[in-house]
Amino acid sequence: MADIGKLLWPKSVAVVGASSDTHGLRGRILEIMLSHPFAGQIYPVSRSAAEVQGLKAYPSVEVLPQPADLALLIVPAQYVPAELDRCGRAGIRAAAILSSGFAEEGETGRRMQHEIATTARRYDMAVSGPNTEGFSNIAASLCANFSPASDKSAGPLTPARPLGRGQISVISQSGGLGFAFLDRARPRNFKFRYIVTTGNEAVLETSDFIDYMLDDGETDVFLLLIEAVKTPEKFKRVAERALKAGKPIIVGKIGQSEPGSRAVASHTAALAGAAAAYRAIFAHHGLIEGRDFDEMLDLAAGFLACGDRLPAGNRVGICTASGGAGVWMADACAAAGLDVPVLDDATRAALDVHLPSYATSQNPVDSTAQGVQKLGYAQFARLVAGSPSIDSVIVVITARRSAFLEADLPKLKDLARESNKPVLMWTYTLPSERTIEILNETGYPLFTGAHGCARTLRALADYRAMRKRSSRPIDTTAPQTSSRAKVAAAFAQSPSVLCEYRARSLLAAYGIGPENAGLLAHSIDEAVAAAHAIGQPVALKVQSTDIPHKTEAGGVALNLTGADRVRVAYENVLAAAKRYALTAQIDGVLVQPMAPPGREVILGINRDPTWGLLLMVGLGGVLVEALGDVALAPVPLNIVAARALLDRLKGVQIFGPFRGLPPADTKALADLMVRLAQFAADHADDIDAIDLNPVIVHAQGVSVVDALILRRDNRRTDPGAAE
Amino acid sequence: MADIGKLLWPKSVAVVGASSDTHGLRGRILEIMLSHPFAGQIYPVSRSAAEVQGLKAYPSVEVLPQPADLALLIVPAQYVPAELDRCGRAGIRAAAILSSGFAEEGETGRRMQHEIATTARRYDMAVSGPNTEGFSNIAASLCANFSPASDKSAGPLTPARPLGRGQISVISQSGGLGFAFLDRARPRNFKFRYIVTTGNEAVLETSDFIDYMLDDGETDVFLLLIEAVKTPEKFKRVAERALKAGKPIIVGKIGQSEPGSRAVASHTAALAGAAAAYRAIFAHHGLIEGRDFDEMLDLAAGFLACGDRLPAGNRVGICTASGGAGVWMADACAAAGLDVPVLDDATRAALDVHLPSYATSQNPVDSTAQGVQKLGYAQFARLVAGSPSIDSVIVVITARRSAFLEADLPKLKDLARESNKPVLMWTYTLPSERTIEILNETGYPLFTGAHGCARTLRALADYRAMRKRSSRPIDTTAPQTSSRAKVAAAFAQSPSVLCEYRARSLLAAYGIGPENAGLLAHSIDEAVAAAHAIGQPVALKVQSTDIPHKTEAGGVALNLTGADRVRVAYENVLAAAKRYALTAQIDGVLVQPMAPPGREVILGINRDPTWGLLLMVGLGGVLVEALGDVALAPVPLNIVAARALLDRLKGVQIFGPFRGLPPADTKALADLMVRLAQFAADHADDIDAIDLNPVIVHAQGVSVVDALILRRDNRRTDPGAAE
Repeated sequence: MADIGKLLWPKSVAVVGASSDTHGLRGRILEIMLSHPFAGQIYPVSRSAAEVQGLKAYPSVEVLPQPADLALLIVPAQYVPAELDRCGRAGIRAAAILSSGFAEEGETGRRMQHEIATTARRYDMAVSGPNTEGFSNIAASLCANFSPASDKSAGPLTPARPLGRGQISVISQSGGLGFAFLDRARPRNFKFRYIVTTGNEAVLETSDFIDYMLDDGETDVFLLLIEAVKTPEKFKRVAERALKAGKPIIVGKIGQSEPGSRAVASHTAALAGAAAAYRAIFAHHGLIEGRDFDEMLDLAAGFLACGDRLPAGNRVGICTASGGAGVWMADACAAAGLDVPVLDDATRAALDVHLPSYATSQNPVDSTAQGVQKLGYAQFARLVAGSPSIDSVIVVITARRSAFLEADLPKLKDLARESNKPVLMWTYTLPSERTIEILNETGYPLFTGAHGCARTLRALADYRAMRKRSSRPIDTTAPQTSSRAKVAAAFAQSPSVLCEYRARSLLAAYGIGPENAGLLAHSIDEAVAAAHAIGQPVALKVQSTDIPHKTEAGGVALNLTGADRVRVAYENVLAAAKRYALTAQIDGVLVQPMAPPGREVILGINRDPTWGLLLMVGLGGVLVEALGDVALAPVPLNIVAARALLDRLKGVQIFGPFRGLPPADTKALADLMVRLAQFAADHADDIDAIDLNPVIVHAQGVSVVDALILRRDNRRTDPGAAE
Repeated sequence: MADIGKLLWPKSVAVVGASSDTHGLRGRILEIMLSHPFAGQIYPVSRSAAEVQGLKAYPSVEVLPQPADLALLIVPAQYVPAELDRCGRAGIRAAAILSSGFAEEGETGRRMQHEIATTARRYDMAVSGPNTEGFSNIAASLCANFSPASDKSAGPLTPARPLGRGQISVISQSGGLGFAFLDRARPRNFKFRYIVTTGNEAVLETSDFIDYMLDDGETDVFLLLIEAVKTPEKFKRVAERALKAGKPIIVGKIGQSEPGSRAVASHTAALAGAAAAYRAIFAHHGLIEGRDFDEMLDLAAGFLACGDRLPAGNRVGICTASGGAGVWMADACAAAGLDVPVLDDATRAALDVHLPSYATSQNPVDSTAQGVQKLGYAQFARLVAGSPSIDSVIVVITARRSAFLEADLPKLKDLARESNKPVLMWTYTLPSERTIEILNETGYPLFTGAHGCARTLRALADYRAMRKRSSRPIDTTAPQTSSRAKVAAAFAQSPSVLCEYRARSLLAAYGIGPENAGLLAHSIDEAVAAAHAIGQPVALKVQSTDIPHKTEAGGVALNLTGADRVRVAYENVLAAAKRYALTAQIDGVLVQPMAPPGREVILGINRDPTWGLLLMVGLGGVLVEALGDVALAPVPLNIVAARALLDRLKGVQIFGPFRGLPPADTKALADLMVRLAQFAADHADDIDAIDLNPVIVHAQGVSVVDALILRRDNRRTDPGAAE
């Protein structure tokens, strides 16, 4: 593996294509580098100039006084492959390629990009780009990029009084957006460590940089801007590593819409992939998604300031001196799924001593202006934080004038040191610079948006819960080795479409549904006999590899009682099936008992082009299909993750007592999900899709009412088979 | 009606309770007033001091050199009623009561607040408050409040270079939040006209101030912060007036959550009301809801800058020089329900001339840094605005450095003058002050949040569409006067619960369902004869005033064929009904043909404590009931509003071609909604609730499958009847 340390921590840098014209990008990059106190050597490389911006220039990387650690290439695309090779020959082991015009620009560009990857491998070089805007190593004062955000005029790279003790790193496929994080975070006084923009990721990917920074150990919070993940397995591995290490990853995934993904394809030649699949992976691995700069920076502020002191639950106490602002914050908390419970009597009594008669201690605790004047924010927050009814505190302040906070400073510091519950601040006026400094010094994160504050608090609590959950052993109810082998052997001999009776015999090996959910009849008499043996209303279903969707084909008859009805139905479903597919090879008609009623659910396995097989669960029925209330997760997954997945359904409450029904057996449903996920994971190469539709969840147990498996091999040659 | 002009535009102001101690609120208010160049007289009134803050003080409002136009009362609550009466006697015709401790503080406070209202009426005084933080009339430099936002140190009241030509007014029940709008809008350079905080609204309400400002004619955009609307009819009237005048009202409704409304109740003694009902009223009257300061100020910026130049549709062209930022904006537009179509060939060809080979003109149009350097933002936006495929343009810029925009200034001005499509700007870096000035000067609204920008654009388009829609004549298919009288007479003789057959006979007068949807049988033989006459599968339903929910009682049997089954079912439903309610008075059993299948919908009328009867439409079925996908509107409503209401359902697509079904007859459904709303409006005093559940929407026509009306009179004496 190439050494990313050479790229991010070079002792010497060659700028290939450097220029003295600081209006162009080739001049800007050197100008910006030189404006910061980077301690290493900088070698301009220029074919035409002997001196660039006051530095001696070299005609080629091969004639430098020593091989540089890093080369920045900013020459036109067509010269890049040869130049990179020259770097390799000259002993340079890291390069950032800032030039554009590669995979994003047709066949020639793609070929050149491929050549770059080959050269990098040949010389074991750490190569970033092409089409990157460069990077900054803030700790080393190295700004190897041409972003206006790195310009000295934009302000210092590191704030005098940073928020919290942690450091934050940005890894972004987009150059403009990557450096914009630094720019937009400036009023918040974050301490950044690295900003890396990765461009087309011909060699080094976002995941590689996360991995390096986790080794490095100095990044406490990650901000990611992703267009497409190149190597999904690597990404999942580093995400897991980060979660284990307690280093939160805040991610913005762009290109989630149709026009957005169209644009991604055109500008970095990546496929943006299905938004829902990305979301499933993020949720499963504890990444925190943000939709916008402000949302992502709010989240970062929360994690930076709170460090390990994350809320143990979703219950929040709100301190306010403005009634209206307290109400607004309570609404925002409710919208974020937080609880704002009425405080316990002891805490209320302790508060009431300090409050005027027209104030209220319920929660939000509205001290009115008079009350807070007397108490101060710190004492106010301390009293509320002491309540056993809450896990965290939001203090609503007006941060326009700092005098009041200034007077409260020692007490605020004490509270920050002593409280084991996080305290967040929301200001409804614009904060002054001094207010931000005071709060940074004491370590409280300050928010200007009520919703941003509430959402962040929720994310802090979720992250803590997620880490706890993920630290449990994975009980995926792995089946006997013999079952696994049996299923693998069966797949090898299966047709491309495994209709219900075939699918069931494989699934049953993993405890998914009974092996014999009905009898396969080959004649009217067999069907009648089967119905008689079952002794209750039955369903008849045509079984044929050529008819995956038998309901659509009219190949199903439900709720049949008595020999006459079974006879007629048998003839009907066969006739309908033949009308639907004249040449269909029909294996027989499945005769099954009707399942008792319950909540209808759809379980499925589907293949995402990026992330492979994903488990899907959704609420059944026509209308919910229209609303698209489904949740996805990678396979395999354990019982805790399966239950978490159910909780992500908007209509999850139908599993509780509902319309007079007793609660549904979600334990059995979650168990079924775990088994199905294990089945899919064990036989991923053989599977393109599985449908269990519907599954009926009873008060006790579940019924798998139908099953279908689409094999993978077949799909490769006939992509239309599953349509 | 008292003269609000005396309140907002006084020539002389008495400050009752004024003090020289500027650390207290009674000193702060005078200090702030004096710091601005208000041209009128200011009279401190103090019992103890002969001089206050350098001004001669008077012992009482009765001994002023002349009766003041306005009195500001800031004395303890218990003195307020007498003081207000003294003002009245002294000929003062306007007062703002800043004191707290009224209806928000128990019985005594409520009584005092009532006294204030009585006094105001007696002297025909325009009274604001109590429990208000005061107001500002920016045009008159009058800051009659103690908000830190009004402090001179916070910056000038009016910006040197305001955004657009319009003025904005704030009316807020919360004092802190009201003035915070001014504070937080400062970096945006809005021109404010009034900021009025209304407190407990004992006399003057939010609606009164809107009304005054519409007369005044100088407010172009309203920002409202509402806890509860006091007089719903007045609010609806001014909302309608504002819409007709094209003066958008942007509203933040706080107290929408359970903890939020609990807090509202405690701090201004108002009932926050049902959030869904408020939302329905806002949507119906074209008010634009915002959730947070930034969202509301973004909306205000859009309306202020665009004025009458609102987008004719939802199609937007995006200009960007950063690929990633363009993608993010495209995602934001899609999330806001905007279209980002690929541009037409002619526009693309015109653009391609200027773009490098690795740029793209599809949409988002990504010029890359090189492309925009050549074109400039103005020319870039002009080329895109020329496309017939789009209705508006978003230009993605980096506003950290102003030099590039500065150079483009003349062309930007030309474009602003000449383009009839709105052009919005989004910056992904932080804007410099100079950049904001430049853009304000040219009249383009600048956004820092991609979602805020996209949502605002959508709101601009929606507002234009809403005004167009509301200008159409209202075709509420009002029934014959005779029908109306007939129904009124029937109500007068109806029981408290009108079961299906009774409800139907009333509803049929308005064309809601057929009059005889089935036959009422009083014996088995009558039921069998009715089923025979109907000649297709029937349903049997017990009819009893004592059994409003007959399905729950087992009083319904479906899908019956043949005399035997009808006979058994008849006995079953009667027996079940009697088990359910032993003493139930049973009117008979309704025998109806089964309705053909289709999309299931719930239509209803419900009474909201604030807004009265509201029409509800929702998608039927157990699962959607769990998801709560319903939409509300006030009654009556016309066909256009009915269709708009259907469009607000999340699952609206089930009405289109769905799962092989032909499109549903939404025209018939909308017509039914209009009729039901008219019925409810005409007989509002008699109705507490109506349920048409389900209504089945066919490919042609609709079937009202069940009906129930709860009368109002009865509910007054027996509030539990509908449970």
